[in-house]
Amino acid sequence: MADVDVTDAETPPSDRTRVRRLAKRAHYDEATVHAILDAGLLCHVGYVIDGQPYVTPTAHWRDGDYVYWHGSSASRMLRAQLNGISVCLTVSLLDGLVLARSGFHHSMNYRSVMALGQAELVDDPEAKVSALKHFVDKLVPGRWEDIREPTTQELKGTTILRLRLDEASAKVRTGPPVDDEEDYALPVWAGVLPLALQAGTPVADGRLPADTAVPKAVAGFRPG
Amino acid sequence: MADVDVTDAETPPSDRTRVRRLAKRAHYDEATVHAILDAGLLCHVGYVIDGQPYVTPTAHWRDGDYVYWHGSSASRMLRAQLNGISVCLTVSLLDGLVLARSGFHHSMNYRSVMALGQAELVDDPEAKVSALKHFVDKLVPGRWEDIREPTTQELKGTTILRLRLDEASAKVRTGPPVDDEEDYALPVWAGVLPLALQAGTPVADGRLPADTAVPKAVAGFRPG
Repeated sequence: MADVDVTDAETPPSDRTRVRRLAKRAHYDEATVHAILDAGLLCHVGYVIDGQPYVTPTAHWRDGDYVYWHGSSASRMLRAQLNGISVCLTVSLLDGLVLARSGFHHSMNYRSVMALGQAELVDDPEAKVSALKHFVDKLVPGRWEDIREPTTQELKGTTILRLRLDEASAKVRTGPPVDDEEDYALPVWAGVLPLALQAGTPVADGRLPADTAVPKAVAGFRPG
Repeated sequence: MADVDVTDAETPPSDRTRVRRLAKRAHYDEATVHAILDAGLLCHVGYVIDGQPYVTPTAHWRDGDYVYWHGSSASRMLRAQLNGISVCLTVSLLDGLVLARSGFHHSMNYRSVMALGQAELVDDPEAKVSALKHFVDKLVPGRWEDIREPTTQELKGTTILRLRLDEASAKVRTGPPVDDEEDYALPVWAGVLPLALQAGTPVADGRLPADTAVPKAVAGFRPG
């Protein structure tokens, strides 16, 4: 186990996406990048206003070579990202605490993707509806068919942005702690405490008729 | 329930930390900000290199009015953050999917904090040890006493940064979906699917003597 090996790490798509630290944890292949993006429900988008970086958490979804996010058309964040400015979209999944025999070798198991580029506005109403369908059906497969479709006004009020995955890299750590050889003799518990996002029992809205069945896709939801 | 009310929202510490969208979800009081920072295991730090924003996930911890993060002294990220440049540190906790009767009102329940400012280097060796103790004991209370203490070389190889929580804001959403009045009659399940990070069964390191007990603080670990 230990750290992932490098057999599926390919050439980074750009120098600035090259993972510098712990290069053995780096992956640049599409399958790894896509799988991490698809497993995540929340991304963090970085952008700059007047020299100050901002990092905003928001839901994301992927369709082909693009990763999408959205929000209110009145959002300062989205307006700041409109005009082709540079963004960084990062998705991180925390998989465990790595408890070593020294503080120095404590770590975390994780999967993360960092994607750089210029945000593009999705402006065409049909493309917007299609993107929103993708989003809702990613959360709960089949849900788009069940809910009310968006009105023209709602579509206007929704800004959708996307980023082409031209400059993306993944970083993954798995496995047990890697301690200094002499520390393995220390009388301290060491290992991994797995962590995962878990779904609880669905909570029906208070105004729902009592006999409304919970859809299978909701009851059986497994994050990631 | 619905969205949190604003009774504990105080004046934002600066105009740029004022929550613009959905101001009813904003909180600026210390207790809310601290509780969210303390509940999170992973933050996302935003910084700018050559005009390009980067967002890096990393572990964080809080001590008083400061939030800390660390990494290898060889890290490009940490070197870029050294010289008092502006950073944004964001912590987000995903608490649930909010499944409404229209796509437009789908949402997420979450708690997040965004803190802006200039990173400061923690340079004094004693202050570094004290900070690392805080970090390890945040993860597993009491662990610092059990593990090997850091060597001079390890301390040199570890860069610790901190940010004073002068410009921080929190944003929180809780409760059920808020649908348009006419949509409540639609025959579709609506409600909240709770989500939470959960710890699994500790996995002992393969080189650990078989009779090594799992510390109570590890076995009983509850994220958040």
